[in-house]
Amino acid sequence: MSVTAARGFLAGAVRAGIKESGDPDLALVVNRGPSRAAAGVFTSNRVQAAPVRWSRRALADGRISAVVLNSGGANACTGPGGAEDARVMAERTALAVEVTPDEVAVCSTGLIGVRLPMGRVTAGITAAADRLSPEGGEEAAVAIKTTDSVHKTAVASGPGWTVGGMAKGAGMLAPGLATMLVVLTTDADASAEVLDAALREAVRTTFDRVDSDGCMSTNDTVLLLASGSSGIAPGPAELTAAVHTVCRDLALQLVADAEGASKEIEVAVVGAASEADAVEVGRSVARNNLLKCALHGEDPNWGRVLSAIGTTSAVFDADRLDVAINGVWVCRDGAAGEPRDKVDLSGRRIALTVDLRSGDSSAVIWTNDLTAEYVHENSAYSS
Amino acid sequence: MSVTAARGFLAGAVRAGIKESGDPDLALVVNRGPSRAAAGVFTSNRVQAAPVRWSRRALADGRISAVVLNSGGANACTGPGGAEDARVMAERTALAVEVTPDEVAVCSTGLIGVRLPMGRVTAGITAAADRLSPEGGEEAAVAIKTTDSVHKTAVASGPGWTVGGMAKGAGMLAPGLATMLVVLTTDADASAEVLDAALREAVRTTFDRVDSDGCMSTNDTVLLLASGSSGIAPGPAELTAAVHTVCRDLALQLVADAEGASKEIEVAVVGAASEADAVEVGRSVARNNLLKCALHGEDPNWGRVLSAIGTTSAVFDADRLDVAINGVWVCRDGAAGEPRDKVDLSGRRIALTVDLRSGDSSAVIWTNDLTAEYVHENSAYSS
Repeated sequence: MSVTAARGFLAGAVRAGIKESGDPDLALVVNRGPSRAAAGVFTSNRVQAAPVRWSRRALADGRISAVVLNSGGANACTGPGGAEDARVMAERTALAVEVTPDEVAVCSTGLIGVRLPMGRVTAGITAAADRLSPEGGEEAAVAIKTTDSVHKTAVASGPGWTVGGMAKGAGMLAPGLATMLVVLTTDADASAEVLDAALREAVRTTFDRVDSDGCMSTNDTVLLLASGSSGIAPGPAELTAAVHTVCRDLALQLVADAEGASKEIEVAVVGAASEADAVEVGRSVARNNLLKCALHGEDPNWGRVLSAIGTTSAVFDADRLDVAINGVWVCRDGAAGEPRDKVDLSGRRIALTVDLRSGDSSAVIWTNDLTAEYVHENSAYSS
Repeated sequence: MSVTAARGFLAGAVRAGIKESGDPDLALVVNRGPSRAAAGVFTSNRVQAAPVRWSRRALADGRISAVVLNSGGANACTGPGGAEDARVMAERTALAVEVTPDEVAVCSTGLIGVRLPMGRVTAGITAAADRLSPEGGEEAAVAIKTTDSVHKTAVASGPGWTVGGMAKGAGMLAPGLATMLVVLTTDADASAEVLDAALREAVRTTFDRVDSDGCMSTNDTVLLLASGSSGIAPGPAELTAAVHTVCRDLALQLVADAEGASKEIEVAVVGAASEADAVEVGRSVARNNLLKCALHGEDPNWGRVLSAIGTTSAVFDADRLDVAINGVWVCRDGAAGEPRDKVDLSGRRIALTVDLRSGDSSAVIWTNDLTAEYVHENSAYSS
C-alpha cells in the first residue's frame, strides 16, 4: 500500500526512459490535503546533490504538496546545470499537479556526476501526473528502485489514522542516513513541528543505525507528509511510535536487500557508559572489513571484534570485554570464552552482542557481511 | 641485508613449529653494542596484545638489547596467561643471549585470541640463539611473515653509518600503524631521545599513512635499535632522513603485498587548509569501499571520491573540488571535468589527486583496491 495507504495521497509512476533498462524510473506523490504539513531529514554528507539542496529549501516553511522522484541518475556533482535541472523538475511537477514549485520536493537516485536527460524527465512528469491515483503507491515504490532487488513498503496504523511509506536503497548504505530515498505519508493531522520531531526521533534509531558498507551518499532523503484527511490529531508520542514502526520496518528491508550481502548482522552493544559510546562501538564493529569477511566465511572471529572496539574512544577496560556471537559468549574478560565451534553461523541472520561492562546504555547497529558479490556488483556499476 | 646491514647486530631464525605449515616462525635480533639505545612506537588500538604491553615497559628506559619475534600467533586477547607467556619469552631470550629480561622486546603476529604453544616457543628461542650471526637478517625477515607473499627488507646509508630494517604485514593494514612488525637497526651513535624523535617523525608520514583495509591491529610495533658501533653520531636531521627512507621503502612494500589486492593506490590530497585536513580527506577516500571496488573494476568513478570527501570535517567548498585520476582531471569544480574514458586504469599503480583548493597543505595516503580475493582470503583465515 506504500505512500497511498494514508488517505489524501495520490501516486503514480512511469517508464520515462531515464534508465537504459527501460524499467520504471519516475514517480510522483501528491498530497491532496486538507493539510500540507511536512518534515524531512537529509544526508549529513557535505557533498549534497542538487535535489537535496532544492528540497531543503522547499521544506523550510514546513509545507510540501508533492514529491517528484527519479531513479537512473542522482543529479549529484552536476554543477550549476544540475541545480537548474532540479528546479525544472519542481516547476514541471508544480504545473502538472497545480501547486507552486516551492511546495515540491525533488528526490533523485542513481549514478553520481551525470546530468539527467531532461527531455525525458519532463515528459515523464507529465505522464506520471496523468496516472495519479489512490492506488499508485505500489508502482511509485517500484519506480524508485536502483540496484534494489525488491521494492520496499511499510504501513502502521493508529486508531482511525495511518502511516505508510516506501524506500529504496541497496548500496552506499551508511550513517548519516543510509543511501536511500524514503517517502512517508500520514492522514493524521499534525503540525510541521510535530512531524519534524516525530521523524527525527524515528530516523535517529532506525535509518541512522544502518551501516551496511560505511559509505554515505550525497542524496539521502526521508520525507514525511501529512494530509490530515483522517481528521484525527494523535498525540506526539503515538505518532512518533507509528513513524518509528514504519521506519524500522523499511530500514530492516534495506539491510535485507543490501548489494551482494549473504548475511544480515545485528550488532547490539550493551553495558555502555552512554548511548553515544554504544553507537560508536557498534559502528566501528559494523564497519570492520575483516570481521565482515570472517562472518561471510561463517568464522566466529571475535578477535576482530575486539580489535574494532579498540579503535574507539568509548569507556571500557580491554580486560573486561565480553562478546557473544549468536548467543555463545566466545569472548569473556577480553580473552577466549566458550568454544568457538559452538557457534552456528549457517543462517542468514547473525546476532553479535558486545558487553562493554561500563554502564547501562545500549544501541543496535545493523550491517551486512562483505562478499565477493559486493565487490563484483560495485566494480561494474557505472560501466 | 635487513636488520644486520648495520654493524653490531646479529640475527637468527628457526622453524619452531608454531605455524602448522612448518615454515620459519621465530626470530631473534640482538644488539651487541657498544650502545643499546632504542626507541619504539606501538599500535594506537586500545586493545593491545601482551607482547605490546611488555615491550612498552621494556622500552621505558630507552634501552633494548634484543628482540624476540614470532609469527603463527599474535598472543593478543589471551588474558593473564598471555601476559605470562610474553614475560617467559623475554626471560628465555635474556637467558639465551645473556642480557636481562627488561632489555628484551617481544613481538608476536598471527591469529588473535589463541595462546602460543610455549614449549615450542622456548625451544625455538634456544635454537635461534645458536644461529645468531651477522648474516642472519634475511632469515629473520622471512620468519616473521604471516600472509605476506614476500619478505620485506630495506637499507639506507649515511657517511660511515647505516640504517637497515625488516617488516611484515599484509592485512589489517591501517592507521595508527599498519598491522605489522618492523625492526630497524643502525650502527649510528644516537641517544634514545634522538632515536625516538627520528622514529616518530619517520613513522608519522610513512607507516601511519598506509591504510590498506581500514583495520587497525592489536600488535603493531616499530622498533629502532642503535648499536653505535660505527663510532659516528650523525646529526638528528640526517638520521631522521635515513630512518624515513627505510620506513617509506618498507611501507610501500607492505602496500605492494597487501592481501588480495590488485591495485596500489596513492591518494594525494593537495590544496588543504592544514595537514590534518589533508590526512582526514585522504583516509576517508582510502577507506571508501565503493571507490575501492570501482578502482578494482578500473572504473574512474570520481563521484565516489566526492562522496567520501563529503563525510569529512575538512575545509572545502563542494562546488570547488577538483579530482584527477592518473593525471586526468575527471572532476572540476565539483562536477564532471575531462572525459572519464581518457583515464587508463589498466596498470597496477593508481594515482588519485584531490585538490581541496583551500590552502597549501598536503598529504599522501597509500591504500589498495577491494577485491574478491581479499574477501576470500579473510573469510577463510582462521578456519
